[in-house]
Amino acid sequence: MESLMIYMPIALALIGLIYMVIKKSWVMKQDAGDGKMKEISDHIYEGALAFLKAEYRLLTFFVIGASLVLAGIAFYMDSTYLIVVAFIIGAVFSAFAGNMGMKIATKTNVRTTQAAKTSLPNALKVSFGGGTVMGLGVAGLAVLGLTLFFIIFFQLFMGGEWTNTADMTIVLEALAGFSLGAESIALFARVGGGIYTKAADVGADLAGKVQADIPEDDPRNPATIADNVGDNVGDVAGMGADLFGSYVATVLAAMVLGNYVIKDMGGSIADAFGGIGPILLPMSIAGVGIIISLIGTFLVKISSNDAKEADVQKALNIGNWASIVMVAAACFGLVTWMLPETMQMNFYGEGLQDISSMRVFYACLVGLVVGAGISAFTEYYTGLGSKPILKIVQQSSTGAGTNIIAGLATGMISTFSSVLLFAAAIWTSYALAGFYGVALAASAMMATTAMQLAIDAFGPIADNAGGIAEMSEQDPIVRERTDILDAVGNTTAATGKGFAIASAALTSLALFAAYVTFTGIDGINIFKAPVLAMLFVGGMVPVVFSALAMNAVGKAAMEMVNEVVRQFREIPGIMEGTGKPEYDKCVDISTKASLKEMMLPGLLTIGFPILVVLIGKIVYQENNMLVAEMLGGYMAGVTVSGVLWAIFQNNAGGAWDNAKKSFEAGVEINGVMTYKGSEAHKAAVTGDTVGDPFKDTSGPSMNILIKLTCLIGLVIAPILGGHGEKTVLTNAEVEVETIIGASKDLAQATISYTMVENGVEVTKEETFSGTEAEVDAKLKAFEKTESTVEGDAKKVIKKMDVIKE
Amino acid sequence: MESLMIYMPIALALIGLIYMVIKKSWVMKQDAGDGKMKEISDHIYEGALAFLKAEYRLLTFFVIGASLVLAGIAFYMDSTYLIVVAFIIGAVFSAFAGNMGMKIATKTNVRTTQAAKTSLPNALKVSFGGGTVMGLGVAGLAVLGLTLFFIIFFQLFMGGEWTNTADMTIVLEALAGFSLGAESIALFARVGGGIYTKAADVGADLAGKVQADIPEDDPRNPATIADNVGDNVGDVAGMGADLFGSYVATVLAAMVLGNYVIKDMGGSIADAFGGIGPILLPMSIAGVGIIISLIGTFLVKISSNDAKEADVQKALNIGNWASIVMVAAACFGLVTWMLPETMQMNFYGEGLQDISSMRVFYACLVGLVVGAGISAFTEYYTGLGSKPILKIVQQSSTGAGTNIIAGLATGMISTFSSVLLFAAAIWTSYALAGFYGVALAASAMMATTAMQLAIDAFGPIADNAGGIAEMSEQDPIVRERTDILDAVGNTTAATGKGFAIASAALTSLALFAAYVTFTGIDGINIFKAPVLAMLFVGGMVPVVFSALAMNAVGKAAMEMVNEVVRQFREIPGIMEGTGKPEYDKCVDISTKASLKEMMLPGLLTIGFPILVVLIGKIVYQENNMLVAEMLGGYMAGVTVSGVLWAIFQNNAGGAWDNAKKSFEAGVEINGVMTYKGSEAHKAAVTGDTVGDPFKDTSGPSMNILIKLTCLIGLVIAPILGGHGEKTVLTNAEVEVETIIGASKDLAQATISYTMVENGVEVTKEETFSGTEAEVDAKLKAFEKTESTVEGDAKKVIKKMDVIKE
Repeated sequence: MESLMIYMPIALALIGLIYMVIKKSWVMKQDAGDGKMKEISDHIYEGALAFLKAEYRLLTFFVIGASLVLAGIAFYMDSTYLIVVAFIIGAVFSAFAGNMGMKIATKTNVRTTQAAKTSLPNALKVSFGGGTVMGLGVAGLAVLGLTLFFIIFFQLFMGGEWTNTADMTIVLEALAGFSLGAESIALFARVGGGIYTKAADVGADLAGKVQADIPEDDPRNPATIADNVGDNVGDVAGMGADLFGSYVATVLAAMVLGNYVIKDMGGSIADAFGGIGPILLPMSIAGVGIIISLIGTFLVKISSNDAKEADVQKALNIGNWASIVMVAAACFGLVTWMLPETMQMNFYGEGLQDISSMRVFYACLVGLVVGAGISAFTEYYTGLGSKPILKIVQQSSTGAGTNIIAGLATGMISTFSSVLLFAAAIWTSYALAGFYGVALAASAMMATTAMQLAIDAFGPIADNAGGIAEMSEQDPIVRERTDILDAVGNTTAATGKGFAIASAALTSLALFAAYVTFTGIDGINIFKAPVLAMLFVGGMVPVVFSALAMNAVGKAAMEMVNEVVRQFREIPGIMEGTGKPEYDKCVDISTKASLKEMMLPGLLTIGFPILVVLIGKIVYQENNMLVAEMLGGYMAGVTVSGVLWAIFQNNAGGAWDNAKKSFEAGVEINGVMTYKGSEAHKAAVTGDTVGDPFKDTSGPSMNILIKLTCLIGLVIAPILGGHGEKTVLTNAEVEVETIIGASKDLAQATISYTMVENGVEVTKEETFSGTEAEVDAKLKAFEKTESTVEGDAKKVIKKMDVIKE
Repeated sequence: MESLMIYMPIALALIGLIYMVIKKSWVMKQDAGDGKMKEISDHIYEGALAFLKAEYRLLTFFVIGASLVLAGIAFYMDSTYLIVVAFIIGAVFSAFAGNMGMKIATKTNVRTTQAAKTSLPNALKVSFGGGTVMGLGVAGLAVLGLTLFFIIFFQLFMGGEWTNTADMTIVLEALAGFSLGAESIALFARVGGGIYTKAADVGADLAGKVQADIPEDDPRNPATIADNVGDNVGDVAGMGADLFGSYVATVLAAMVLGNYVIKDMGGSIADAFGGIGPILLPMSIAGVGIIISLIGTFLVKISSNDAKEADVQKALNIGNWASIVMVAAACFGLVTWMLPETMQMNFYGEGLQDISSMRVFYACLVGLVVGAGISAFTEYYTGLGSKPILKIVQQSSTGAGTNIIAGLATGMISTFSSVLLFAAAIWTSYALAGFYGVALAASAMMATTAMQLAIDAFGPIADNAGGIAEMSEQDPIVRERTDILDAVGNTTAATGKGFAIASAALTSLALFAAYVTFTGIDGINIFKAPVLAMLFVGGMVPVVFSALAMNAVGKAAMEMVNEVVRQFREIPGIMEGTGKPEYDKCVDISTKASLKEMMLPGLLTIGFPILVVLIGKIVYQENNMLVAEMLGGYMAGVTVSGVLWAIFQNNAGGAWDNAKKSFEAGVEINGVMTYKGSEAHKAAVTGDTVGDPFKDTSGPSMNILIKLTCLIGLVIAPILGGHGEKTVLTNAEVEVETIIGASKDLAQATISYTMVENGVEVTKEETFSGTEAEVDAKLKAFEKTESTVEGDAKKVIKKMDVIKE
């Protein structure tokens, strides 16, 4: 049985990938339209490829550099070099997933335009088909890669059989390399993509509308191709890499905490899964989630050619909700099947507690509720026609200033409900099943990743399809149909961002918990001044990161505007449509600018945690545990502040966007119907300009920032863990002296040992009495608290347990 | 000697207050000008009084309500009702200080205008004289009130003589009531004042400029008086109450931690100050600081009538820097005089350490550096002509959108240096002298409060004086002179805000440390999920608070605009200057709106910490310690996030303001000189509109939010403290079995005891060996770690110490 289960996630991932290939060939077989359409589509495809090529060239250097650092760490730690291999493959998998997603998206767009010529249901079928390929590809590769490496490391380090939790920790430490590789690529994909898309968008807008008074999607606008490429670079490749990273990191963290559950239960359990049920569970949920998402995509369809936005939205909702319900059911089955009916888990400060597997299932439900809840909140604060949006529209009547204030305030207030939900989720899932519960809440939520990505990727595909329709001057009905899809895509983009934040936040928490177990610290005490100082520093980083990202967009957009103006001036006949704009120059500017500008934020993200450790080590050479706590404080600061700024920026940006869009259909302000072109609309456009980098660059980057910070912490953790010098058992003679009473009601154990505490030699003798379970718990807790026991001492304590039994 | 020193701060405060009265009568004797000037001044004075009256009426209800709650807590805790008395008097003192400051400011403004008719040096002398009255009044009342209550409680609870640290804790717990009263008033003064001033400002601007095209200060603008009142309500009364609160809270927290130092040193010390030197020190520094500030004000003067902004700024700087240097010298004297040469302090996780008094002095220096540093950073990010401002100016050329992005980014990036400085300050002052060091860093910084306030209050007085000159149509030279003072006032306003943030942040930290000692918890472990959840919730509160404050300004400004438009429409001859605007109606609107709108943020501030405790108590009835940690997590979240948002909002607002002002003298954009009235200037005006509530309402409110949150925590602390059920020594038989060796090199002590830990009875025997000092330290640490020892057990441990000696 066990041999079957460990391969199950791989099998499921392969099914997903096979279906993905079938779906892909179906999409590719669709009609790609006539000459002009194809030409534009090819431009976009080539622009996207050019970006990817340039990005991957740059990332190659990064991966090589980071690999050397990792190898150095492995050398210093005398640990396995395989973490480097895992890191490289993680980076390659993530890049491959992004590459694949972007290729299919840029191939699907024109096919969607062509399908829209026939009917709306067909257009949805094609565009969502492209999204499905993307979603299944990303999720499939994530599960495949992670499981594969787990099996390899499990064989290498443990011979494929359970030995003890320490060995499993080594397996998982190496596996963290895969996750780190994936997330590093995600950083550059998200940040670089975010800068690219907004530089092109703002540049095209400003240049086109301000300088030559032609629409954004006009083929005479040289930046228009770059703008369309940007949608793919940011919303498809960026989002894909983001969720790929979350998926992998969540499962990894849950596995680490599963190992910890086994440790709490005495170091080994007997189950039908080779004694690693709690570790296999998160992988299994991820694997089953792929199949569930696959089934969910079948449910997304409309039949009527007269369908409106609401109908399309409903079709997507049915698919989404069906997936969520199926995941809930699957979690119930898997949890009850794979976990022991009752587990022991150690709660900090509260000791060991008996936890039933049903409580783990409830924790999974908490995760599903959070995902759905945060998406719903996002829709409330950013959805067309909602109260906050109407308020911003009203405030636009008194000018851009009041519009901006209203938008900022909306984003800020929107943190209230999301953070409360989130805090409640942390608390309840922990209360239900400890940090294992928190990690499984995240895993359950992430199980529908493939479905979420399908819905997410469908938006920019439809957006592009509309652009192609406009540029190739199709019949207005075509644009009308793609506009319906695009409008729905805007909503799903906002809720997708909510999902991405929720996933990043839960993932970071799970990583945070895994970090503490890796380092073996007692907790993170912010009453220690150095730890508190790092909490402040961590809190600051997301704010500065966001500012850097925003400034990068400003700079890149300026370059773009200058280039467009130059072309208008220098290319003869460009305005009449006889001269051909040099699209590739604009694509090139966006590409170069985004890659250059993502350096500093990237450096900040990766450099700061390393700096914290270095400074900590210099000051507290003898106290690794304090340095580990400092890094933990930094991680907590980044996470708390990052989640806040992510919600704030995404929702403010989304709200401004839809406040502007409200004017297209007309809005009532002080009793007067107001439309596009009015003063109020101009104010709303200003708000949207501010909101663009908020919602598409700095906001979504927060996800990566917090996840990557926690992952770096996790990789550094082994360096800091297990080397604490505070309390050392030197001359340990640990033995159980007496056990009185065979009954469960009365037991007693005495242990004595000598230790060095802060330089003072202390001989201790402790006698525990109570029921057998209680004494047992005390002995286990004792072993745990002496976490810095060195060398032989540890073994002696372990022997003690054996004697007792 | 001791009887002298305890009264010293009172004596110094009285000297300050006496000088304040003399200075006040000097200011009042100055010429108040002719008919029209006096009329306008009277309008402002009456408007200010009307606001104060309405505010105090409302606050009376609040104080009664809060007193009842406090009395309830005292009843529940079986503690002293005197905390209620202290609370009420603290509120009354704070209100009285604000009242006095506002009265003198509104009397000085017209006298400054009149003085400006003769010369610039005279105008500075009068306006700064008014500021001095305000500064000395606030600082004097703060020190007087706090010291008076300390002496009373010291007599009541301890008979005026040192007994033990537990009794002193009761004294300080009661004293916390005074601080809470002061800070509660500050909340409403800052938030209400902030809403008032910006509602009037934005209202007057929009109504005057947009609707009737007349300048802001035009007497035909009905909102102009409200605008001038607002400067006093926000910048004078609000800032005064803010610093009054910081001053009191800082000293209080330092006293609490001083008591803790005595505890660490064995429960009593022998010094020339009745054994309470470490507790008296912060009060003494505060007292001496008043006299130093008084001397510093003498140095602020200019002689030339042709002086420019730089000369006036220099005069203020000389006074300020001289005060800082004198405070440093005074700290050296007081610290070496009043503290034992070597103290023992307990560092969490590192045990007892010997700390020399010089290290405490260095911690004081850290505080002075932070105050000066944060002011300097603020000036860099918001000062006219600085790089960030020029960048915003450049970005204004492409419209309001890019101007806003640049301003936001500037505010966000500005958190970098300030937070790093701040984190370094926490770390170093703690490393130097524990949390006592952190609190004394804050105390040293706050010692120049009177000087800071004098400089701060001078700004709005000069601003008002300019307004009066404009409205009463004086000779242009008068306005020119007041404009010079006003320009300097704008810079001091920004740096003053930096000082206020730094003080609030350090104060909160000191309160935070005091909180931990009051509750007796081991620290605040954010690895416990409920604590982490509260960290998130705490982080969210400043964001939502800011949004509420910003929305409040928007709403109130709208009402103001509507009223002004009504008056323009309904009052005949108003535009020709023959009809009289109804100023009082506008004042009334600002007053009512600000009082109404400050309710919700106030409720959020006060209600949330109480809610955290209530929910915690419901869930963890048996575990007060965990609830205390949860509240601590909440406090840390509010502080970290609040400091960030304060810096962000203040600096973004200040930067936008000065970017707009840059256009007055003309700026070069892309090689072209650009002035007021250009498109770029209009974009900058939009930025300023957004920045106004940032820098004058929501930004400064953060100070109060974080301080009040930590103070509420401190007042609640005794409820949570001392009742932990985690580890209880029940059947303690503690005794020293053997002490070997009389030499200092070899000592040994064995203790044995029985205790209940998580329900299990444990018998422990511990033997410590090492040098005598080491063993001694271990024994003391042992006593401390068993902080939840109950009843007789505690006494037995104490007896053990005696036997050993």
